[in-house]
Amino acid sequence: MISNDDGIHAKGLHKLIEIAREFGDVLVVAPHTARSGMSNAITVEVPVRLKEYESDTNFKSYSCTGTPVDCVKLAFDQLLDEKPDLILSGINHGSNSSVSVHYSGTMGATIEGCIHEVPSIGFSLCDHRPNANFSPMAPFARKIIAQVLENGLPKGTCLNVNVPKGNPEGIVVCRQGHGRWVEEFDKRTDPQKRNYYWITGFYKNMDNGSTDTDNHILETGRISIVPINIDMTHHKFLAELKNWKF
Amino acid sequence: MISNDDGIHAKGLHKLIEIAREFGDVLVVAPHTARSGMSNAITVEVPVRLKEYESDTNFKSYSCTGTPVDCVKLAFDQLLDEKPDLILSGINHGSNSSVSVHYSGTMGATIEGCIHEVPSIGFSLCDHRPNANFSPMAPFARKIIAQVLENGLPKGTCLNVNVPKGNPEGIVVCRQGHGRWVEEFDKRTDPQKRNYYWITGFYKNMDNGSTDTDNHILETGRISIVPINIDMTHHKFLAELKNWKF
Repeated sequence: MISNDDGIHAKGLHKLIEIAREFGDVLVVAPHTARSGMSNAITVEVPVRLKEYESDTNFKSYSCTGTPVDCVKLAFDQLLDEKPDLILSGINHGSNSSVSVHYSGTMGATIEGCIHEVPSIGFSLCDHRPNANFSPMAPFARKIIAQVLENGLPKGTCLNVNVPKGNPEGIVVCRQGHGRWVEEFDKRTDPQKRNYYWITGFYKNMDNGSTDTDNHILETGRISIVPINIDMTHHKFLAELKNWKF
Repeated sequence: MISNDDGIHAKGLHKLIEIAREFGDVLVVAPHTARSGMSNAITVEVPVRLKEYESDTNFKSYSCTGTPVDCVKLAFDQLLDEKPDLILSGINHGSNSSVSVHYSGTMGATIEGCIHEVPSIGFSLCDHRPNANFSPMAPFARKIIAQVLENGLPKGTCLNVNVPKGNPEGIVVCRQGHGRWVEEFDKRTDPQKRNYYWITGFYKNMDNGSTDTDNHILETGRISIVPINIDMTHHKFLAELKNWKF
């Protein structure tokens, strides 16, 4: 089962479908339009719709008016007869490394697959352009998918795969980089003289030269794989916090 | 600085403001309407607006057309002159325990505060009603806020505080429960004969009787505090994954 956050028309989604179909039957449920930055959001205030988009032997795709997580939830509840072997999300147009894992709709769908206890992988290419070239990464994506199909993933764990532009020089398993987006909202005034704000900003690396982070791996032209834990408990601090006087 | 996901008019927000003002100056930026289930979503496709809502000595509040995370980001970029001592989020009308930490806009704002390196606490009461009674939990919230102001929180760590209905019988530090929402979308047909789906469902506990989880603590009438780690790397599995043949 495949979803994404760039929407049903995105080139990266169709590349991922092409790769996945080499492995077996494919069901796609993807947002009908771009839903970047949707994180793990679900749609509760309005109902959502599903529309059949394409179908072929061993392949069916639907567009959905909801978020990436809604897509995965609807697939499980309305469209799948049995648990899928894999949930794939992407290939995202743009990086989802480091702290972006929290904002990413691509990773939202991936984490939702993991919550449903299906091995799940999110793929992102560090190239925002609609016509980004996804071909150089295809052999690496195949290898990662094959490995996960063979070995499975531990319960509560999914993968965040980020790929540099161009020809990747290998794959490195690493940790989530430490940093944050420094926002500089672009404040403008509309014709009615009211202010409005566009989100903009740059990523600030706060790792002080560590080489075991996804950011560093990407900078050196290699593919980063970060295993993501859906149990967000800070187990190390938990023991200390138990000593506080509440 | 305070935000929430039930919106600027919510009773739980105003209770949290009342409590926070006992400790110092307060800035509120909250969604202009309910944005439940918004997770860590950010608004990228449209601009957002800010509107002054209330102001008083040492207190200012704004409504925002964006998500809870947008509210926190806008506060840092446009409204705060210095780093706040605390980010508080809530008090949410409804539980955000266990896996709901991933979908919760209340926790989205909390995690965003933590990403900005400010001690951050999300508060939720297990009562969805608009007129829920937040008074019994007030002394406990005061105690938790005072402790965090005194001790701080380690970098990259925030707190997910959930409170049972009625008079809480104490506070327990514990881990995130293991479970998931089992969705049963309610499929309906509109007057144009097209299908639409409402999200609905129930929480399935998958912890098999563990007593150290937030769900269990809440069921036994006590307040749960789960320390949340914004580094989502599964460090334990990382070592094993390094041995895979990519």
